[in-house]
Formats: sequence, C-alpha cells, structure tokens
Amino acid sequence: MTEIKKIVIIGCGAAGGTAAQFARKTNRKVHITILEQGSYPQYSKCGLPYAISGDIPSFHHLIEFSEEWFKKSHIDLHLNTHVETVDVINKKISAKKGNENITQTYDSLIIATGAKPAIPPIKNITKNGSLIDNVFYLRTIHNAENISQKLDEIKKTTVIGAGLIGLEMADCLHKKGKQITIIEALPTILPNILDEDMSHPVHETLSKKITIFTNHLAEEIHTSNGSPYALTIKNNKTDEKKQIETDLILLATGTRPEITLAQKIGCHIGETGGIKVNNKCETSVQNVYAVGDCTEYVDFVTKQPMLVGLGSIAVRQGIAAGVNAAGGTYHLPDGFLQTCTSEFFGIEIASVGPPLQTIKKTLSVVQAKYNGTSLPDYFPGGKPISVKVTADANNGTIIKGQAVGSNAAQRINTIACAVLNQMHVETLRKLETAYAPPIAPTLDAVTIVCDILSMKLKRKKMG
Amino acid sequence: MTEIKKIVIIGCGAAGGTAAQFARKTNRKVHITILEQGSYPQYSKCGLPYAISGDIPSFHHLIEFSEEWFKKSHIDLHLNTHVETVDVINKKISAKKGNENITQTYDSLIIATGAKPAIPPIKNITKNGSLIDNVFYLRTIHNAENISQKLDEIKKTTVIGAGLIGLEMADCLHKKGKQITIIEALPTILPNILDEDMSHPVHETLSKKITIFTNHLAEEIHTSNGSPYALTIKNNKTDEKKQIETDLILLATGTRPEITLAQKIGCHIGETGGIKVNNKCETSVQNVYAVGDCTEYVDFVTKQPMLVGLGSIAVRQGIAAGVNAAGGTYHLPDGFLQTCTSEFFGIEIASVGPPLQTIKKTLSVVQAKYNGTSLPDYFPGGKPISVKVTADANNGTIIKGQAVGSNAAQRINTIACAVLNQMHVETLRKLETAYAPPIAPTLDAVTIVCDILSMKLKRKKMG
Repeated sequence: MTEIKKIVIIGCGAAGGTAAQFARKTNRKVHITILEQGSYPQYSKCGLPYAISGDIPSFHHLIEFSEEWFKKSHIDLHLNTHVETVDVINKKISAKKGNENITQTYDSLIIATGAKPAIPPIKNITKNGSLIDNVFYLRTIHNAENISQKLDEIKKTTVIGAGLIGLEMADCLHKKGKQITIIEALPTILPNILDEDMSHPVHETLSKKITIFTNHLAEEIHTSNGSPYALTIKNNKTDEKKQIETDLILLATGTRPEITLAQKIGCHIGETGGIKVNNKCETSVQNVYAVGDCTEYVDFVTKQPMLVGLGSIAVRQGIAAGVNAAGGTYHLPDGFLQTCTSEFFGIEIASVGPPLQTIKKTLSVVQAKYNGTSLPDYFPGGKPISVKVTADANNGTIIKGQAVGSNAAQRINTIACAVLNQMHVETLRKLETAYAPPIAPTLDAVTIVCDILSMKLKRKKMG
Repeated sequence: MTEIKKIVIIGCGAAGGTAAQFARKTNRKVHITILEQGSYPQYSKCGLPYAISGDIPSFHHLIEFSEEWFKKSHIDLHLNTHVETVDVINKKISAKKGNENITQTYDSLIIATGAKPAIPPIKNITKNGSLIDNVFYLRTIHNAENISQKLDEIKKTTVIGAGLIGLEMADCLHKKGKQITIIEALPTILPNILDEDMSHPVHETLSKKITIFTNHLAEEIHTSNGSPYALTIKNNKTDEKKQIETDLILLATGTRPEITLAQKIGCHIGETGGIKVNNKCETSVQNVYAVGDCTEYVDFVTKQPMLVGLGSIAVRQGIAAGVNAAGGTYHLPDGFLQTCTSEFFGIEIASVGPPLQTIKKTLSVVQAKYNGTSLPDYFPGGKPISVKVTADANNGTIIKGQAVGSNAAQRINTIACAVLNQMHVETLRKLETAYAPPIAPTLDAVTIVCDILSMKLKRKKMG
C-alpha cells in the first residue's frame, strides 16, 4: 500500500468539506487541499430558505466551517478556484484562481462537484442562455441573496415543483408576506417523499394558505420589461390552460449531477447520470473518490441505483471518502435509506425508504397506516401523528416508513433503524417504546401501525 | 386443545384491562369477567401526579376505559369486588361484592393484582397500622384525592425517594406552589434510570427550585396533633442528622408485588418477589396467567429476573396474556428493554436497558456520552440533548441508552430498537437519521455518541 501524503478535494460543499475534516481526523500528517469554485467555504445549502425567511439571522450564519477553521485544521482551502485539468496518470491537477495557476499532485483525489439545477423547458425562461430577471433557482448563497434583494418589490410568487425544497421555499416566502402559487407536474405534492394518502392532509393544510396546482406544467412565462408578470400553466390530464399572475418564479425542479470533470477523467457514470461509487466512495478510476450530489450509489432496500440528493447522505459519503482517502477504512452500509424530514406551514413530515413506485418495480409490498396522537388521550395537548409503514410482502421485513405530524422525524429515525436492521414487522410491533403521560402514549404510533401491518400481512398470506 | 369459553381476570389496572381488551379482540365469543377490588375501571396510575397538578383537568379524566366501554365490549366488569378463593382444580373463583357472592368458573385465569407501596421503616410513620395523617403514597385515585384535599392547608412538602414517581410528584406539587424537599437514600437522583454523570445536570437544575438530600435516610417523623411538622433525616455516609420542617410527606419508595392470591394457588414466585411468568405470561400453574406489577419476567440484556414496574410493560403483558388466554398466540420478546421516560421541571429524560450496576454483574461494558443540540449550530433555538450509550465490551452490541434533553424519549426509542435488534455499534453509528435545519442536525446525537463509543471499543480491544 502506498502511503497517502496528499489529498486533493474538488468542491467544498457539505460532502467535500466533510471529507476534508475526516481525512484530517484520520491522518494528522496528510496534506489536504480543497479547490472550490465558489466564494464561500462549507456552508449549509439546506439552510438557504431559512436565511431568506429570516429564521436564520444572516447568510453568513450558514457558514458551518470558516476559512479560519480550515486554516487551523491545516487544510489548504482555495476559494474562487476553477479546476482546469486532472491528469490521472501523473496524479496532477491544474486549477486557476483568478490569474494565479495552481498545480497540485495527489495520492487521493475526491470529487465533490455537486449538482446543477435542472431548468425546465418553459417558454421565455432564459434570455441569451441565462435565466431572465426575477426567475431563480436556489443552490447558492449568491442565488439566495439575489432572491432576497427582490422581495421588497414583489408580491406574487410562483414556485415550480412541490418537493421538499419547493415547499420549504413556499413556506419561507409566505412568512415574508408573499402570495404563493405552487405548480407540480405530478398528481400530488411531495411525490417522492409521501404516498398520496399521506400527502393529502398536508395538501389540505397548505391549501388554506397558498394556491397549489398539481398535475400542471408551467408552459410559458409572459414578460414585461424582461421580467415575468404571468405564467401559463397546463393541466397535463385535461390539457386545459390557465394564466396566473406572478412577479417572481422560483424553480424547485430538481438537479442534475455535475459530472463534466469526472467524465473527462474516465469515471464510470451510472444510469441515473451520477458518478458511480461503491461503499467506500471509490469511483472506477484508481485513487479517485466521489461524494455528494454528483454521485450515484444504491438504495438500501431495492439495491437499485439512486442519485444522492440529500445533505445528510452527502455528509455520510464525505466521512467515508475522507477516512478512506487518508488511508483509513470506512464502509458505508449497502445502500442509502434516504431518511429525510422537513417542516413547512407548521407541519413536520419525514420518511425513510425509496418512493413506493420505485420499490414496486422489484418488490411486492403490504402497507398500513395509523392516525394517532403524540400523547395519551387523557392528557391535554396531544398533537396528531400519522405513521405509515411498508413491509416486503414476501418476508415481512420493514422497508419503508412515512410520518406526518408530531416528532415525525424522530419517529422515522426509529423506523430507519428497523429498516437498516432488516427488522421483521413482528419484532418492531413489540418494541417497548418510552411512555409517560406528558411525553408519549403507552403504545407509540410507530408500534401500533405495525400491529395493523402484521394483521394485513397475515391476511395476505392466508388469502 | 380445550376450547376457551371463559376467562376471568383479577384486577382492572393497565395490565388486567388491556388483557380483557385483547382477549375480546382475539375471541369474539369468549366470556370475559373482570373482578376489581377498587371502585374505578381501568385508569392511568401514571397520570395521577398530573391530575393533582391540574395538567389533567380532573381525576375522572384518567379513566381510559369506562364501565360503559366494558359493557359495550361484552366484558363483565365487577368493581368493589374482592376475590376470596381460587380453586385451580375445579377452575372456580369465589368473590364478594358487598354482600353479594360471585362464583365464576374459568378456562383461563389472569392475575393482575398489581403492587402495593413499600412503606419505609420511619419512626412514627404509622399509627394503628395505618399511615398517619398527611403522610401519603400515590397508587390510586383515592390516594390522589386525599393528597389534593390537603394541598390548600400545607406548604412544606417532603418527597421520600428520587425515582421517576418521586420527581414527577415533586414537580407537580412545585407547580401548585409548594416548597419541596426530596430525600434519597442512594448517592444520586434517578438511581435506577440514569448513571451519575447523566443525572448530575438534572440534579443541578432541580436544585435551583427544590431542596435535594441524596445519601440521606428519613429516620423519624415528628408530629403535632397526629400529623407531621418535621422529619429527621440522617446522612448515611457521615451519620450526621438534620431536622427538616414539613407539613406533608409523600412516599415514593417503590412497591412490592401483590402476590398473596398467586402464592395461595401455588404459582411459582421468583427471586425478586414477583410471580414468575414466561414470554406468554403463563405462570407455573396451568391455565393461569399473570401480568403487570405483580409479576417477574427477565431483563432483555442480562436475562436476569426483574420486577415489572412500568405501565408500558404492564400493557404489553396484558396484550400477550389477553391473546394467549383467549386461544391465540402471542410471544413477548425474550426479556423487557425497560424503556422509560419522564419530564419534570422542564427536563425530559429517557432510558432503555437495566441499571448499569445490574449489567455489570454479568457483562463487561464500554460507554460513551455526547452532549449536542437538537438543531444544527447555525439554526437558532436548538436545545441541549445529552445521550449516553452502553455496549457489551466483548461483542460491541448496544445494550443500554440514556438521554437527557430535547426529544429524549423519541431518541431513546431509536436506541431501544437497536437494543432489541442486538445491533452492533458500528451499524448504529452509520444510521442515516432524518436531517432538516429546523428539525435536526445532519448527524444526530444518537449516531455521534456511537462514533465515540466505536473509538472507545477499538481502543479497549487494542489496549
């Protein structure tokens, strides 16, 4: 084994920054260089909506590790630096920082180039290759600052895409007093997170405060002086068109992995369009790792390829790549659980496991849902909690969980633990959960839903 | 197999009442009789402190299943009924309800006689075999009503015992404006729930509002007109004595299983003093089950006998016994996890697994603690959360968890799930927990503490 003396990391987002930290933790002597094209060190992209809303006092607060922190950790962080070439034969990188040329050799290279927003094919969305005025996506502090600057002069806002980021943005702009319309091409909001029956009550609550069009595509932006005043949307079931007034459009229509560099050096790209990595975050090119939104790994339940799109996964890949690149050993589990959560308009939602439609391609499932409360019936102040659990119909293993309501995230963590253990529904239903009148009922929703699921599984077997 | 036609249940607490419900769910035709010596149907004993404090509007609210509910479920509930004899040969029970004699045969008998308060040997605590005025324990609605009636006329209250119930009572009486002193014989508060280092910050917080004497025994009550005005306590390390003023004394010094009847009919009594039951809640006598606080089962981790003292366990035993007694099949896990939680003076605490001193008798352990916050550092409003995890030093299996702070109970549920799965610390540390800025950090305290534990385990192996 060659001794690892130099690590180069391309990108200082959550994945790249974390990789640097864990490389340093693993190896005190290794020389670590980060080349980041943006002008900020590691900051929380997930926090951007909350800095716009004012929940987080300033964009500066989002910076999780400052330039000083990297300096103290003896990590050479180069901001505003664009990588030009990677020579994998001689393990050498050339980059440009303004007029300065940076050349750096490596023993381990970590690609953390992230993803770029997917721009939907809407008429008039761009001019000369750039988004027109008052049409934005939200990926960087720079984007967020631009949106913030416009908020005083606009009132009617349209968010395209009703996934996590779309709804988080809708909530944050609603807090700023804006009038919100959400356009979603699929039949339900949060389509990759919640089943229809679970998202329905969320939809109902949101509908009281904002306007939601599901099954609608944005077709054409109507502009005046180069910025939007209206948007034509089309019902993709009926083809009926509608024109809605809007001063500002936010795109929350997903991302595509940034793989240009990885492709150039011959990294195997997976079928989802991300850089293929294994459980050590190794790419197909020797000594080259990849982490975060630019990568493809597999889903834990189906073992099918999936794109990494969650900050929590990016961080976990960063840990693995950082340790491995520095000469240690760290294996990720055999797939990602895709545990996630969010909160908007006062509702907490969480889920673990791939979307139902993805699971159904390879597995037969049984599902159960339970609507309970967070406290015993006799204790005032209980809040609604709805939990849905999915089991593999063939063997009764827990493979997916969804929750809406009180402490949804922490309840999903328990189900995530069960999924990671390939726990049988008969075991989880007998879990002794913590009980006290002011905190939780004797039987938590997490186990009651498994009682129902157990019965459904037995009925299915008998049927 | 004999067909089950008649079930008799002695006791309508959480265990007995739940057994009746699940017997009914399992078998629509079976005849179910409950004989309860108290005057209320199934109510929450755990809720009593909160009805005294006023958090729960009235004692009546604590009734979880009313007489009407039992009637509708075709369960014959006899209140104020005292069982006189059980003839296990002829499977016949004789009981007395006022002057009425009740005779009932059974195919399955379920004993749910609960526990009685342990009265500590304090001088002057009783007169003519009964507790003196203004000295109480809290087991029944009747006890709680008696305490409530005295509250207007008293100010200085002493709670003996700093376990869960003692601290819950202290908090509830503090809310009512009373001055509280707690006396605990052991060196720390919550001695069976939290390790010393975990209970210490709880102690610190409580000390700002109430007076706590650990390492102290209550020796003598000083009375005037038959009720207390002072209490002599003794430091059990230094033998130093102190007299504290008190108008009311609450005993929270534990309970002893009520086994008189079970003993009479020949049920095997375990070494802890509870009725020995297996994972189906069967006693050593054929067709006789026992559930709840009167029983002894085993601890999941050490497989050592333990008394059932938690409502959540009583309910789970009730489910098992109810199903089995009615002709179904329900096996409990191979031991109880002892997951528990509570909240007092604004602090949530939770734990899973037996006390450390119990574990150490049979296993060698490694422990780690982590003090984190409930939210990412950059998001305002994060609350402290401290988590401690214990692993079996020989195989790295998670065997115990403790938490103090934000969502302690739900975090402990995740650790309980890991304990039940005999999960390795290396697996739990890689659990993908749910992350979103307003809800939880990218790496939850539950996994970070396992990172630390993993390192300690490796170091121990190398050392």
